[in-house]
Amino acid sequence: MIPTITAFEKSPDGGQGLARDMRVRWALEEVGQPYEVRLVPFNGLRQEAHVSRNPFGQIPTFEAGGLILFESGAIILHIAETHAGLLPTDAEARSRAIMWMFAAVSTVEPPIVEREQADFTDRGQSWYSPERFAQMEDRIRVRLAQLAARLGDADWLDGEFSAGDLMMVMVLRRADEWLLAEFPPLVAYVERGKARPAYRRAFAAQWAINGEGRCQTS
Amino acid sequence: MIPTITAFEKSPDGGQGLARDMRVRWALEEVGQPYEVRLVPFNGLRQEAHVSRNPFGQIPTFEAGGLILFESGAIILHIAETHAGLLPTDAEARSRAIMWMFAAVSTVEPPIVEREQADFTDRGQSWYSPERFAQMEDRIRVRLAQLAARLGDADWLDGEFSAGDLMMVMVLRRADEWLLAEFPPLVAYVERGKARPAYRRAFAAQWAINGEGRCQTS
Repeated sequence: MIPTITAFEKSPDGGQGLARDMRVRWALEEVGQPYEVRLVPFNGLRQEAHVSRNPFGQIPTFEAGGLILFESGAIILHIAETHAGLLPTDAEARSRAIMWMFAAVSTVEPPIVEREQADFTDRGQSWYSPERFAQMEDRIRVRLAQLAARLGDADWLDGEFSAGDLMMVMVLRRADEWLLAEFPPLVAYVERGKARPAYRRAFAAQWAINGEGRCQTS
Repeated sequence: MIPTITAFEKSPDGGQGLARDMRVRWALEEVGQPYEVRLVPFNGLRQEAHVSRNPFGQIPTFEAGGLILFESGAIILHIAETHAGLLPTDAEARSRAIMWMFAAVSTVEPPIVEREQADFTDRGQSWYSPERFAQMEDRIRVRLAQLAARLGDADWLDGEFSAGDLMMVMVLRRADEWLLAEFPPLVAYVERGKARPAYRRAFAAQWAINGEGRCQTS
């Protein structure tokens, strides 16, 4: 059965692959599972057809037969549990890989997204403050420094590449490049992820929809 | 084997049960798994003994034999996978319960925690702005309204009580009470969670450490 995922009809990042469908595409490519994509325009996100799939009006969603899932973490974990290649077979190593998925979305990502949103909600407002931005950036630095310390000189967070690395690499990609650049081991870690053939195929697939190439020809 | 979790030696909430060890205590109580607690003082969170368990210097952690986990979501999922009672046996229903765990920590919780942190980082600062607070509160309202719409008049998010409900109830408890009160179905949902015997046992256990009762006698 070929699953269907949803993605933005036109991603606001113009093909940088930062929208969360990229995470799911990458996971599907890692396990060799073909998939179809339903594109959702922005004005469709809050409409019943999409809200029935995801009550929070976000992408991606995942449909396979009667199963409908949202939340990229849950979708990737479902893919990992139904295909080989994204989680270790050893039970304890598997629990640790899932731990890194949660660490990515609930400990590392929130300060990165908060800072990203502030670019939209604070700039030009009466409450805009360079001090506040510096404080937000320091909060991100704390997490990046802790992550870099744990990674050390290893290639991946816990043995072989896993769904935990996939999620962490994608979360780190959302940080500003100049901020990530302060942590060369993390830059190298992200580059290792981006060099994987499955990542490249996933990136190309979203680029075909969102990238500049399409703008030039359409 | 009796697992050991870590918790704050003195929780900043004074026994309200908002620290994340409460989530894990509740999960352990739901499945009837006894556990031990190692209390960590604030100045111990960034010390090597704790950082070796959790590189981000947070509580809770979970140790059982050679396995060490952090991230409450990952710990609860591990408990749910090794004990009956927190996840449905049907594979698709199980994936949906896990989906609600991710939705709780990565979609509903971040705006709530951002607003909570702003009480510490913004008040008294040059960038303090009631408008910004109103904007943050509106972002929380959007999520609560979406969640209430999906819950409808059901008792739980997807059939029987699951780890997804456990996590969502705990995340909603972090929202300001006056804000949650705008959504009576969510207030009732949280109260259903709090009425469960396992919740009550977990709450009492953390209260014994953090609550006023201890302050009066120690």
